[in-house]
Amino acid sequence: MALTVSPSAAAPDISIYDRRESQVRSYSRSMPRQFNRAEGVWLHDSNGGRYLDFLSGCSSLNYGHNHPVLKQALIDYISSDGITHGLDMHTDAKAEFLSALEDVVLRPRGLDYRAMFTGPTGTNAVEAAIKLARKVTGREMILAFTNGFHGMTLGALACTGNAGKRGGAGIPLSHVSHEAFDGYYGPEVDTAALLEQRLSDPSSGLDAPAAILVETVQGEGGLNAASPEWLRKIAAIAKKHGALMIVDDIQAGCGRTGGFFSFEGMGFTPDIVTLAKSLSGMGLPFALTLIRPELDVWSPGEHNGTFRGNNHAFVTAATALRHFWSDDAFKGDVARRGALLEKRLSRMAKEHGLTTRGRGMMRGIDVGSGEVASTVTSACFDQGLIIETSGAHDEIVKVLAPLTIEDSVLDGGLDILEQAIRAALSPAYGVAA
Amino acid sequence: MALTVSPSAAAPDISIYDRRESQVRSYSRSMPRQFNRAEGVWLHDSNGGRYLDFLSGCSSLNYGHNHPVLKQALIDYISSDGITHGLDMHTDAKAEFLSALEDVVLRPRGLDYRAMFTGPTGTNAVEAAIKLARKVTGREMILAFTNGFHGMTLGALACTGNAGKRGGAGIPLSHVSHEAFDGYYGPEVDTAALLEQRLSDPSSGLDAPAAILVETVQGEGGLNAASPEWLRKIAAIAKKHGALMIVDDIQAGCGRTGGFFSFEGMGFTPDIVTLAKSLSGMGLPFALTLIRPELDVWSPGEHNGTFRGNNHAFVTAATALRHFWSDDAFKGDVARRGALLEKRLSRMAKEHGLTTRGRGMMRGIDVGSGEVASTVTSACFDQGLIIETSGAHDEIVKVLAPLTIEDSVLDGGLDILEQAIRAALSPAYGVAA
Amino acid sequence: MALTVSPSAAAPDISIYDRRESQVRSYSRSMPRQFNRAEGVWLHDSNGGRYLDFLSGCSSLNYGHNHPVLKQALIDYISSDGITHGLDMHTDAKAEFLSALEDVVLRPRGLDYRAMFTGPTGTNAVEAAIKLARKVTGREMILAFTNGFHGMTLGALACTGNAGKRGGAGIPLSHVSHEAFDGYYGPEVDTAALLEQRLSDPSSGLDAPAAILVETVQGEGGLNAASPEWLRKIAAIAKKHGALMIVDDIQAGCGRTGGFFSFEGMGFTPDIVTLAKSLSGMGLPFALTLIRPELDVWSPGEHNGTFRGNNHAFVTAATALRHFWSDDAFKGDVARRGALLEKRLSRMAKEHGLTTRGRGMMRGIDVGSGEVASTVTSACFDQGLIIETSGAHDEIVKVLAPLTIEDSVLDGGLDILEQAIRAALSPAYGVAA
Amino acid sequence: MALTVSPSAAAPDISIYDRRESQVRSYSRSMPRQFNRAEGVWLHDSNGGRYLDFLSGCSSLNYGHNHPVLKQALIDYISSDGITHGLDMHTDAKAEFLSALEDVVLRPRGLDYRAMFTGPTGTNAVEAAIKLARKVTGREMILAFTNGFHGMTLGALACTGNAGKRGGAGIPLSHVSHEAFDGYYGPEVDTAALLEQRLSDPSSGLDAPAAILVETVQGEGGLNAASPEWLRKIAAIAKKHGALMIVDDIQAGCGRTGGFFSFEGMGFTPDIVTLAKSLSGMGLPFALTLIRPELDVWSPGEHNGTFRGNNHAFVTAATALRHFWSDDAFKGDVARRGALLEKRLSRMAKEHGLTTRGRGMMRGIDVGSGEVASTVTSACFDQGLIIETSGAHDEIVKVLAPLTIEDSVLDGGLDILEQAIRAALSPAYGVAA
Repeated sequence: MALTVSPSAAAPDISIYDRRESQVRSYSRSMPRQFNRAEGVWLHDSNGGRYLDFLSGCSSLNYGHNHPVLKQALIDYISSDGITHGLDMHTDAKAEFLSALEDVVLRPRGLDYRAMFTGPTGTNAVEAAIKLARKVTGREMILAFTNGFHGMTLGALACTGNAGKRGGAGIPLSHVSHEAFDGYYGPEVDTAALLEQRLSDPSSGLDAPAAILVETVQGEGGLNAASPEWLRKIAAIAKKHGALMIVDDIQAGCGRTGGFFSFEGMGFTPDIVTLAKSLSGMGLPFALTLIRPELDVWSPGEHNGTFRGNNHAFVTAATALRHFWSDDAFKGDVARRGALLEKRLSRMAKEHGLTTRGRGMMRGIDVGSGEVASTVTSACFDQGLIIETSGAHDEIVKVLAPLTIEDSVLDGGLDILEQAIRAALSPAYGVAA
Repeated sequence: MALTVSPSAAAPDISIYDRRESQVRSYSRSMPRQFNRAEGVWLHDSNGGRYLDFLSGCSSLNYGHNHPVLKQALIDYISSDGITHGLDMHTDAKAEFLSALEDVVLRPRGLDYRAMFTGPTGTNAVEAAIKLARKVTGREMILAFTNGFHGMTLGALACTGNAGKRGGAGIPLSHVSHEAFDGYYGPEVDTAALLEQRLSDPSSGLDAPAAILVETVQGEGGLNAASPEWLRKIAAIAKKHGALMIVDDIQAGCGRTGGFFSFEGMGFTPDIVTLAKSLSGMGLPFALTLIRPELDVWSPGEHNGTFRGNNHAFVTAATALRHFWSDDAFKGDVARRGALLEKRLSRMAKEHGLTTRGRGMMRGIDVGSGEVASTVTSACFDQGLIIETSGAHDEIVKVLAPLTIEDSVLDGGLDILEQAIRAALSPAYGVAA
Repeated sequence: MALTVSPSAAAPDISIYDRRESQVRSYSRSMPRQFNRAEGVWLHDSNGGRYLDFLSGCSSLNYGHNHPVLKQALIDYISSDGITHGLDMHTDAKAEFLSALEDVVLRPRGLDYRAMFTGPTGTNAVEAAIKLARKVTGREMILAFTNGFHGMTLGALACTGNAGKRGGAGIPLSHVSHEAFDGYYGPEVDTAALLEQRLSDPSSGLDAPAAILVETVQGEGGLNAASPEWLRKIAAIAKKHGALMIVDDIQAGCGRTGGFFSFEGMGFTPDIVTLAKSLSGMGLPFALTLIRPELDVWSPGEHNGTFRGNNHAFVTAATALRHFWSDDAFKGDVARRGALLEKRLSRMAKEHGLTTRGRGMMRGIDVGSGEVASTVTSACFDQGLIIETSGAHDEIVKVLAPLTIEDSVLDGGLDILEQAIRAALSPAYGVAA
Repeated sequence: MALTVSPSAAAPDISIYDRRESQVRSYSRSMPRQFNRAEGVWLHDSNGGRYLDFLSGCSSLNYGHNHPVLKQALIDYISSDGITHGLDMHTDAKAEFLSALEDVVLRPRGLDYRAMFTGPTGTNAVEAAIKLARKVTGREMILAFTNGFHGMTLGALACTGNAGKRGGAGIPLSHVSHEAFDGYYGPEVDTAALLEQRLSDPSSGLDAPAAILVETVQGEGGLNAASPEWLRKIAAIAKKHGALMIVDDIQAGCGRTGGFFSFEGMGFTPDIVTLAKSLSGMGLPFALTLIRPELDVWSPGEHNGTFRGNNHAFVTAATALRHFWSDDAFKGDVARRGALLEKRLSRMAKEHGLTTRGRGMMRGIDVGSGEVASTVTSACFDQGLIIETSGAHDEIVKVLAPLTIEDSVLDGGLDILEQAIRAALSPAYGVAA
């Protein structure tokens, strides 16, 4: 399949945004277009432009935009006056989602979790998780990690590392200690051992934790991928010290790193898992906190929310689970595409003496600075490729293509990226070209 | 129109929920049915039962379930591959929503706000509002009110009065002081004056506030309606002491109390307004923080979130704004229905020596205790009427019928309620009947 | 006895203070003299000036300066190489203090307390008290009062009302709610009832308190004296809601208001009492937290401090207890002097349409503003009378004469005050005089 | 001089303590005697026993008990009716103390500090220091260290590492991060570099600090002595990141480690220094926060306290400064005794394969466990030697002899210790002996 991107030359009139949308908007600044239609890996703008999407709603569109199977299921549901909003009442859609979760996700993996439908945002799923950990343990302290990202509401924000985001709180963020992630101090230092030492020392000043909250691959913090060994150590440390282990799988889960969960096959089972982003399959707001049954000590309504049962998302999510995860075909596709991505990024890295990051279809390349990365992503956008950055200094160019992308299209998009990096880092080449 | 409710006699098999849904679920406990379809004021269950909905998704369905105009707009949008998930990129749907907001809501009311699309839950809109107030003022303290309800994430939860909800936090909730709401200490005590005294006293121990956060009618806290005079005093106090006034209009807004905003015509303009619940018109997750332009000091992305632009909700919300709010017809209907509701509830109250609460189509009756209220709502449910409670002790039976309800249907539903109250409070009558 | 005050005309060289003492110093600014000697009610400066002391170290010198009995006991102790510093070891001096406390204070009043020797400052005694209350109850919230003053370390400061002091913390002060003191909203409003309503309301937002911390007369906050009725209500509220009642008797205790404790004969028994200031009798650093035995759940050393057993203070304190409190003579003297003080202050108040405050020998007059009060105290100082202010705006001129003052000297000092007030409020008179 | 210890065989009647002193008492539990007299290195009990003091009030008695020069100065002062309590008024005693501080301490060392007289306890000096750092920087976070000990009031307690002490707070301790002290992760890991990495990383989750608070030798935390190199790095890190460097010299200062300050000659100057313990010279309550003049931004009275000017302590402190620190003789004595102590402890350590800790006259030996250490100190006490433990597990036997101890007496005391260790670790020997 030939790659036919065709970005628009001109930006549309966006005065309504200047007039009526808050300054807080961000992505729209680097993509001054107005989009109106999308399918699969393609985004279309109001001037007829067509863009390849390597951002995928920050991994919220793992199955691409408006996947026809999900789209049809949703249209059918709406057409038949299916329940749209039902608080946390029982609905057919919810029952079918829970069944699909049980049949396709939990049972085959030997996992036993209960689903808590929090408000349909990742940050809400994290808030619920840490609330529950505090309730179960009677402790206050949450251990999160350097470069971790967990959300913008106050409880989740305290667990987030980014100083700019933290500064928005306007109050000191408390009851969380940020520990060094795997490899943070270089390959020589076992950061799990450093943590263990302090937790075992009654005079370290580190209070006994309610939970250890970790991403296996840090989506916003630079695509740092923790090793299975380190994660097993962290799981063991949590257990030893009476803390719950919470895996925040909001960005790395739902197939992004290969399996449905990012921690599959690693030899440990989290106490709590948070999911959101691609869970609905179609980009609808949906979030979930999975809880080991013996930890499900909530009182009815103790954590609630108006939109905690998004029935449209139940429909598309159940459909997506059954469509993509009933057998191993999709997983195989993702593995193959992940390998392709790894090969291409490594080649680029080798060419320029750079390093790569990540795992599965969640990978990036460290171009050294946010300035270079911004040059690269701007050049990509001009060529019709939507791609964004990650990391403490936005120095990682991050590839989050839909998992459903054709191999050839993935290759074509990476050609654009390769050229943009070359142009940014080898200006002479850029001029010649 | 005759009222043909027909509740199902038997509960369905709900073992999947016991097995796979968290104990935190609440409404489904008092409504042991599985719903599958809804339109207008009606909910249908999987056994063919039909229920009149006086809960309306806690005021998230002010235009009823699956309103045909909104439903068609959404189906059309999905069918044409409209953008489903676009982070905060510009989309046709967003532009149209902003235009509708400007044309139909802001300009006619002489209001100048910018829209911040937070994560699509009310609690997120509140978190954004208090963050911004703290950023603008450089202060930490938020003043909220007794019986206030603002959400379940940590920042909003600190502003919430309910002890059960607060207890779920697992850490002390700080940086908020809960002041007495209008009428809290009885009609004789001007609680605004009490607040003013402490704020003006440098030795009161009450720190200078970043914001005063108030609901004009307390939806969860017992349908207490503040008087316009009191609200004007609060607005003046906020201004005098350099604090922002935030009206949380999540439950009382979008027409529930008569106007689009609950504070219309009261003689003050909030600095920040939060909206959610019925904003999408169809019950889709959607939330908004409206900000006076001069206070819009956010840095790009300082508060963000994956689902902060729910395009499906943009579509239905814009359609709802233009359909219902372009002229005064709907407002007139709501006023008439609100008067009917008031008349009927007052009659019930008079019959039993009870009191009523609320304003517009957001009213309830205080039946004296949570036990009685529970008896009443259970009896209603058995008769096919879905209705819930509010208040510190769940002692208020709360009528949140769709605003679009036919007058006769409203009347019919209130007949069921009237009889249930009579049965609960006059047992002899109950037996006789 | 004639009143022979003779203030120095000139200030001494104080360059060493400018060079080497922090800007935080305060009293020395309004009293630009250097003092070198003191006995009884008299202070002497390095230029031979002699001043009558109506400040008494903010009630730390209730028995006057260097009382000969205490002074001799201390010299004897030091001369015999009595233990000066012994951490919390048993010493003869400590045993004698505990015996005197038991014999003279506790047993005659039917009180059963254990003494916790905290670091020798009032703030430390308060920190210990609130720590213990939190430990006993498992709750975090402390209820303190408007205009309360409890100390400058972080835990006690959070309980203090004064905004200037609070601002020094540099972090938000949490886990304390400041309730309205007796009479705060005027004589019509029963502030105990307001508190009770919120504590009994599970939706008020006021978390269940660990303790209610109260001064019976607010020494720094304006000499507001709570009524016995109100205090009994507060004690009952604490008991009803499972909170400890802590009376901070640091300024009002040790005889200042008449009895040894300020709450004697009021019909309630605090769970915890804090003492400091005049406890040593001679102005030595000493503080004490008295605890009902069943609440004494401390682990050994859980709250400690290097100077927690000040043996010099044990010596003078024990001597003072036995000397002044073994019979009722001293109490009678204080009552008589308090009545004299009340009479004189009321006369001044009546003359100028002002109001008086306080109880016993802890009284003041509200001169309307901090400016007037400052004029008054400066004029007094120029006449050789040391007197200071109190209150949210420093608007109360506060008489804290030694309790041992001769009636005639008290009268003479009040003459100076009377004239200074007259001069400040009747300028013509001032000129004439 | 022969060593004539003669402990009492029997414990005295201590029922008064059981009846009237709080359970919080600690040292008296391991030393069940009642002391009545002390001079130099000797403590005497009420049964005629005589004990050699290797505890020295936890380094509050660096010049021994009741040093005759200090004692006489104090008796003279009291006899002449010198001001005992003067709040923060100018007094002759204060002026003389400030002059001595300037003459003997600051000027010879080229240091420029202002003295803030806080409440007379170390914890109060620390609270003042961190308040000021927060005020100066506008930041909240304090960086303290593993095993650090800074006091028991809430602000200082948050900086303290010990879990048992922290647990007494009853609320979560916030706004402090505990970093790894020098050598905490073994000699290979440069903990200053670890800290620097996180402070320089905008996504580490470590908020910008107001201050770094450090002890050069951790008195309570195990006598860990930081290297000059590490301390210089910490000072440089503080400067680079806009934080103040606070040296808590409460236990290690006043000569304990050799110089008057523990950081002398190390090539950096702290912004703030806290002193207490031995500052008065005689064990009287006294504390001081030294501030670089440009940081002295306090408002008058912003941090105050009743006993903030302890005039008795001014007298003895000034006398001590002039007596011991006017020339280098005392410093030389301490150096020699420190070397002797080091030699003896090293010999013991070598004999049993143990390690030593500390610096100057602040040294200890790690006997492997709190149980062994307790056996050792009990055995010492039975032999008339008062000695205590330190460290996270109380596993360090700590020698804090008076600095004025005769070399031969020091040697004799160490003989007792050596034998007690031998008995504890070589039971056969113990039996033989």
